[in-house]
Amino acid sequence: MSYIRVLCCRKCGREYPPKPVNLCDFCFSPLEVIYDYKSMAQAVTRERLSSGPVSMWRYRDLLPVDGDVVDIGAGFTPLTKAENLGPELGLEQLYIKNDCLNPTFSFKDRVVSVAITKARELGFDTVACASTGNLAASVAAHAAKANMKSYVFVNSDIEQSKLVGTAIYNPVLIAVDGSYDDVNRLCARVAERYDWGFININLRPYYAEGSKTLGYEVAEQLGWRAPDCVVAPAASGLLFTRIWKGLDELSMLGLIGPVNTHMYLTQAAGCSPIVNAFEAGSLHIHPVKPKTIAKSIAIGNPADGYYALRVARQSGGVPAPSATMRSWME
Amino acid sequence: MSYIRVLCCRKCGREYPPKPVNLCDFCFSPLEVIYDYKSMAQAVTRERLSSGPVSMWRYRDLLPVDGDVVDIGAGFTPLTKAENLGPELGLEQLYIKNDCLNPTFSFKDRVVSVAITKARELGFDTVACASTGNLAASVAAHAAKANMKSYVFVNSDIEQSKLVGTAIYNPVLIAVDGSYDDVNRLCARVAERYDWGFININLRPYYAEGSKTLGYEVAEQLGWRAPDCVVAPAASGLLFTRIWKGLDELSMLGLIGPVNTHMYLTQAAGCSPIVNAFEAGSLHIHPVKPKTIAKSIAIGNPADGYYALRVARQSGGVPAPSATMRSWME
Repeated sequence: MSYIRVLCCRKCGREYPPKPVNLCDFCFSPLEVIYDYKSMAQAVTRERLSSGPVSMWRYRDLLPVDGDVVDIGAGFTPLTKAENLGPELGLEQLYIKNDCLNPTFSFKDRVVSVAITKARELGFDTVACASTGNLAASVAAHAAKANMKSYVFVNSDIEQSKLVGTAIYNPVLIAVDGSYDDVNRLCARVAERYDWGFININLRPYYAEGSKTLGYEVAEQLGWRAPDCVVAPAASGLLFTRIWKGLDELSMLGLIGPVNTHMYLTQAAGCSPIVNAFEAGSLHIHPVKPKTIAKSIAIGNPADGYYALRVARQSGGVPAPSATMRSWME
Repeated sequence: MSYIRVLCCRKCGREYPPKPVNLCDFCFSPLEVIYDYKSMAQAVTRERLSSGPVSMWRYRDLLPVDGDVVDIGAGFTPLTKAENLGPELGLEQLYIKNDCLNPTFSFKDRVVSVAITKARELGFDTVACASTGNLAASVAAHAAKANMKSYVFVNSDIEQSKLVGTAIYNPVLIAVDGSYDDVNRLCARVAERYDWGFININLRPYYAEGSKTLGYEVAEQLGWRAPDCVVAPAASGLLFTRIWKGLDELSMLGLIGPVNTHMYLTQAAGCSPIVNAFEAGSLHIHPVKPKTIAKSIAIGNPADGYYALRVARQSGGVPAPSATMRSWME
């Protein structure tokens, strides 16, 4: 059983039962999973977590799902010490979290594994998503594992290798002429019409929680402590906020000490709406039209940009476009 | 320190000191690493192995290297229960060992990690290899990690994505017009001329040992027991023999019970010299000219074909071309 208590509006704090719903009825802000942390803290120990499977599911006590999980082996990817790049940058302790080594080769397996487990638990037999490519492959793979039907919407200029990597799992694959933001808008309307579990729309509160495991793993792999700094790319900004939440939760549960981690956010120079807002000293994100070959992070209107920006500010880190990342670190 | 004792000719049994040498001076048969198993058995326990890193290097007591390892995080990949494919084939307990989830996306990281560690230990500053693609990426990646120079020989019709995946590590990349077998012949001559650590030539006895870890992992992941059957693809045939050796060693060391594993070998229909020999009831491999899109296993003259064939026979398994694999399993 899970320790999920309610869904809670991130802005106005209104509470909702844990159903397939992602936005507050009153202020249209995103909903977030809230747990019974008191009970959780009594049950969870470092030993209990470390003796679990060599995957993200060792942290299942901290995730919002019940029953059998849809597990294709996501997570617990290597944290590799960058013994050459570190000294090059003047950093003694630089580590790279290699999340390419997930079953469909991106961190999306973390979020999808949670969302599709929840979808099944909530009674859906069909799942869907809007994707720049990585999410598509992950949803199709997990749906195949769970024997569920999947509809995957991508922008038509997606890299062919990503299409192939998705198609092998036999989803219904829909290519949309337009940007990812166009695909996302279309899917928001499709989600209203069909009774599907939309992985990154009506299941988004659960989906989001999967990203926390990346933060948990880094802390465990460093010997149960938070890193001094995290540098992470942002598309929607969700992963960035959840790495932080993961560290924060571990500390709250007494599994690591205080978190003084500086969170550094990176975007492609050709698609950096969150960085733009930071540099303008604003908390308001102006959407941009992406112009970058880094298609996986080409989201011009980032759903969680505001929250990512807040995490970067609160943590004392700064969001930085990739090109200038180095100067920010000096 | 390692438990390596000598290199031993697989055919005539002559012994050699553990240097960069791969063939017996007398009968030109391949050399194999022999350990002091008695001392090894006294030191190694399940607990000691399982408490090691989440990589193939948890088994370093069973590997032929000393000192710091060149570790990019290879191994301890997921063993996933095939919950849909299993019942489809009438198999209750079908597992897939997903070795795509190695740092350069193939099992070659296992063999290269051992070979390049040994190369450094033996004083080489340059490594080289002949490759159908996967080995190329792995050698280039490990050489970058170890700050060694690398020369990588591939056939010029290699898939472009494999070239890119290799080139990013900045090796000296040499494309040879011809088949892999041509590349391999060229490299045998290059290896005689330059004082390089040739990963799959003069370092081959150490390289080979890396493959054992795949067998170790499967046994540990099954709760310390050997599987009933193993189905594995063969190119040179080396991996196939070493999965078997890995299981055999664990049993000899008292870490698992007796090994009654049937070893099933698969090849592409368009390049199946080992299977051909088996079907002809022969132990002699006739080289073939590969004609298959499965380029990674397109080796027409398999160096370890004879030994792979012997393992398949002795274990009671059979080599089977992929297309007919199913019928062999019934």
